[in-house]
Amino acid sequence: MPRLNKTKRRIWTVENGQVTRKVDHLATEEPLEILLRAGGKQRTIAITMRTPGNDYELAAGFLYNEGIIEDKLNIVQMTYCTDGSGQAQEYNALRVQLRREALPELARLERHFFTNSACGVCGATVLDDLAQRNLPPIKTGTLVTSQVLARLPEALREAQSLFETTGGLHAAALFTVEGQLLALREDVGRHNALDKLIGWGLLNRQLPFDDKIVLVSGRASYELLQKCRVAGAPIFCAISAPSSLAVELAEQFGMTLVGFLRGQRFNLYTGIERVLLAERQQPIKTATDQLLAM
Amino acid sequence: MPRLNKTKRRIWTVENGQVTRKVDHLATEEPLEILLRAGGKQRTIAITMRTPGNDYELAAGFLYNEGIIEDKLNIVQMTYCTDGSGQAQEYNALRVQLRREALPELARLERHFFTNSACGVCGATVLDDLAQRNLPPIKTGTLVTSQVLARLPEALREAQSLFETTGGLHAAALFTVEGQLLALREDVGRHNALDKLIGWGLLNRQLPFDDKIVLVSGRASYELLQKCRVAGAPIFCAISAPSSLAVELAEQFGMTLVGFLRGQRFNLYTGIERVLLAERQQPIKTATDQLLAM
Repeated sequence: MPRLNKTKRRIWTVENGQVTRKVDHLATEEPLEILLRAGGKQRTIAITMRTPGNDYELAAGFLYNEGIIEDKLNIVQMTYCTDGSGQAQEYNALRVQLRREALPELARLERHFFTNSACGVCGATVLDDLAQRNLPPIKTGTLVTSQVLARLPEALREAQSLFETTGGLHAAALFTVEGQLLALREDVGRHNALDKLIGWGLLNRQLPFDDKIVLVSGRASYELLQKCRVAGAPIFCAISAPSSLAVELAEQFGMTLVGFLRGQRFNLYTGIERVLLAERQQPIKTATDQLLAM
Repeated sequence: MPRLNKTKRRIWTVENGQVTRKVDHLATEEPLEILLRAGGKQRTIAITMRTPGNDYELAAGFLYNEGIIEDKLNIVQMTYCTDGSGQAQEYNALRVQLRREALPELARLERHFFTNSACGVCGATVLDDLAQRNLPPIKTGTLVTSQVLARLPEALREAQSLFETTGGLHAAALFTVEGQLLALREDVGRHNALDKLIGWGLLNRQLPFDDKIVLVSGRASYELLQKCRVAGAPIFCAISAPSSLAVELAEQFGMTLVGFLRGQRFNLYTGIERVLLAERQQPIKTATDQLLAM
């Protein structure tokens, strides 16, 4: 069965400190390995993290955009590889057979594209890679209140002075569990914003990010979770949605993953034990409420 | 002088068919080439499109996250390369000198990272690469009214049934200049969504996208503009902000670039000649207006 573009998962929704269990749909994020085959040779040309669905179009569009094919007729056939890589990666490797005359110089391509002889990127390989490194464990005792989490988006917006003028930058920020902003970095690429934040930590001897919260302005992808794990941060928050693989990694890393953090309302995907929820919490007072109470 | 993280540009703002000239600030998008130097050897380890600023942190964070360095002490020094590549690329190549004992196996790294012996990615090299391909010209005669543009975001949202449930997917859609939706593709990666859309065009003999409008749900990066150019689309619209390099490429390609497309209000960065602006256009009636008028 081809991979699904949505992944069901039971999560917690928090609103004004009250928690509710519900079933959520996550955008599926899985690797697609694209292999070129021509004249008896076969090479991996790209591995991309994608949402399953329209994979043939994705491969054809990628090859066309990169100038490797010029026409549909350059392609003899496209088939999923079902050999070797096991069920978990079924439908995640696509072989594109080209006409012999359409065969690009593979040596030239190799200089231009990410190549990897492994089975592809998946939760298991990411964990294997990280297991080989001497990484600090993710701490279990770090706690944060839902009130502090609720204040983070506003604190981020206030600090994002650059965002105010261009509207085009992703942000990654580091907070204490009391909600104090320690560092903020911005970039057109969200992975770059987080690399900058972690680089700040490395150069200023602030690593690992034990007892800290990382907040990103956009969505949470597998790549961001992986970087956060390497930096040792136990709590990762995103203003928007996490992908299926981000949630899977957060769970396996033992991290707390918060998504759709929009003030007093947010989703908790993993690691609820680090979040202190108010039994009963006053709703936030609006300016009008405050005036009426005077 | 180091590169700026904001780029000033004169643009047009359109609201209810009325056009105003103004100065806008774009998030700067430029390549950063990261070179490793150790034991007399030097290699390019990565080229990333980034917003200038905190480049040392970006390089350090990237190397740390990839497991190439483990500590600040592994780095002897970091310097911008000022030799050879010319003023346009000054401050866009960073050399990281590692202690000899911290030298990773370069052969192993080469299998894992994008490497390129060229001077880096910039507007000029993108244009050079594309000039070598037999691409259809971008048509000049395609026209669209501001009313049609204003309706596209709503049409995209209606069609994004998947987005409604996961909130985590980027979309790329193709429209006629009359506003008819021809195809829509979604993905966790915005470049994948556009690759799928163009792959759909290739496999269904709908390329080039002459006389068509491409709309993406997020921001406009250099990479998306480049893909659109290859597909021959004259009009590119984004719901959010374009980067500086996206605008630069749109101008050089002779394409129309629309950003912050949020209904009757949007920004026009390049190619205003393709947009028919109403001299006087009725503001959109709200439900209340319509009831009052009955």
